[in-house]
Amino acid sequence: MQPIMTAAELDAFLKAEFPQADGYSVVSVGPGAATMQLLAEERHLRPGGTVSGPSLFSLADIAAYIAILAHIGPVALAVTTNLTINFLRKPEPGPLLGRGTILKLGKRLAVVEVAIQNEGDGVTVAHAVATYSIPPH
Amino acid sequence: MQPIMTAAELDAFLKAEFPQADGYSVVSVGPGAATMQLLAEERHLRPGGTVSGPSLFSLADIAAYIAILAHIGPVALAVTTNLTINFLRKPEPGPLLGRGTILKLGKRLAVVEVAIQNEGDGVTVAHAVATYSIPPH
Amino acid sequence: MQPIMTAAELDAFLKAEFPQADGYSVVSVGPGAATMQLLAEERHLRPGGTVSGPSLFSLADIAAYIAILAHIGPVALAVTTNLTINFLRKPEPGPLLGRGTILKLGKRLAVVEVAIQNEGDGVTVAHAVATYSIPPH
Amino acid sequence: MQPIMTAAELDAFLKAEFPQADGYSVVSVGPGAATMQLLAEERHLRPGGTVSGPSLFSLADIAAYIAILAHIGPVALAVTTNLTINFLRKPEPGPLLGRGTILKLGKRLAVVEVAIQNEGDGVTVAHAVATYSIPPH
Repeated sequence: MQPIMTAAELDAFLKAEFPQADGYSVVSVGPGAATMQLLAEERHLRPGGTVSGPSLFSLADIAAYIAILAHIGPVALAVTTNLTINFLRKPEPGPLLGRGTILKLGKRLAVVEVAIQNEGDGVTVAHAVATYSIPPH
Repeated sequence: MQPIMTAAELDAFLKAEFPQADGYSVVSVGPGAATMQLLAEERHLRPGGTVSGPSLFSLADIAAYIAILAHIGPVALAVTTNLTINFLRKPEPGPLLGRGTILKLGKRLAVVEVAIQNEGDGVTVAHAVATYSIPPH
Repeated sequence: MQPIMTAAELDAFLKAEFPQADGYSVVSVGPGAATMQLLAEERHLRPGGTVSGPSLFSLADIAAYIAILAHIGPVALAVTTNLTINFLRKPEPGPLLGRGTILKLGKRLAVVEVAIQNEGDGVTVAHAVATYSIPPH
Repeated sequence: MQPIMTAAELDAFLKAEFPQADGYSVVSVGPGAATMQLLAEERHLRPGGTVSGPSLFSLADIAAYIAILAHIGPVALAVTTNLTINFLRKPEPGPLLGRGTILKLGKRLAVVEVAIQNEGDGVTVAHAVATYSIPPH
């Protein structure tokens, strides 16, 4: 499974199509995989200063989406149908990575696993599995 | 299972402790249940004007949390450990309701099911099941 | 959403196509819903005599499948793509019911929620949400 | 995270405590991980000869359980509270492996990810994430 878009192309697509995703950027892509970074701003935090649940959800969801697009091209209409997230530990302050790994890339459905880690110490703070529905051509 | 807090008390607690949850308010509580409303603002929407995935996630997560607090009191430290969400249909523009129903309220874990519906036509647009860990007293 | 097969037709289909599903039978169908019963035999139990996790999984999976077939007809090729189950309480000895409610019945995907209850006291002992992929005609 | 039981000890424990788990055996343990094998027999199959959903569920559930026990010792009372499984591809005939990796091992909850693969070609046919509740000492 080889990506057909570069990290820079995916990042430009993301920023053009989803302006509300600021703070999230594409770090790298590889065979069957993509990594996003979240540089948390004030609005991504909850009281106490740790990254909020919805921001972790978004990081997982976007990492899955970008991993898929990296391999099928910029199909803006792919939609999340199901996402399961486990919150494991309180994130550290500082940037987080969402490492997406494609488990299945079918014609109609794609399933992606995402490990969310502190960029600093590499500890996994949350884990998600997302299913995306891919529209017919 | 009888609630020990009113909708007004829960709403005041939510707004005091989680200022970033503006747009979300407690509509009603009942035995084993609570209903939240999301009045979507610009930042809850995605391109095209429908409510974003993270905003639906938040509505589910908050509805589950409020349903639990309604029955155990204002325990700010209860944390989500797991949430599974299915996105079923594109929401209508306009307010959404998150109807939380407690499936289990144990000493250590609580499980809550949440149906997210258009307030207008009552159609279920997303469905979630959340597990919360309840801290020891 | 009206069923197009009766409980007796569905039960006959299940027993013909899935002989290993003995112990499971279709109790009733209704608009958007179907109920299965599991009469647990020795092989459905685990040490201590309560119904095993895999048997509860099967009850949820079959109830979801039957709820879908009731509304689209006997499409043997519909397959489970995702199932999330929460185990809430130890089941009572005696028959269990799996009450399936369709959350979405699309052309490609169907999502069904299933409450598993003791037939005796009606207590919900497990809860599942299953997604089925429906083959193109 | 170092295991405190060997594969042989875990396999003996499993066979003594869960006689219904025949067909499943412990292959190996390592830091934060354990691998199970399922040698499917007639009763694990569904029409057509592929391994059934409940048998894949069991493989995931047992692999998660064994991964936990390997690190905390033979606590028979740990119970599954939540399991999400994605069915990705039809398994090949022949043995399957369930590779469990611990995501979190807390005092009260453990979360384990399990990849189910054909032993022959190493292809992942299903993927699960399970949460276990660990009883207080």
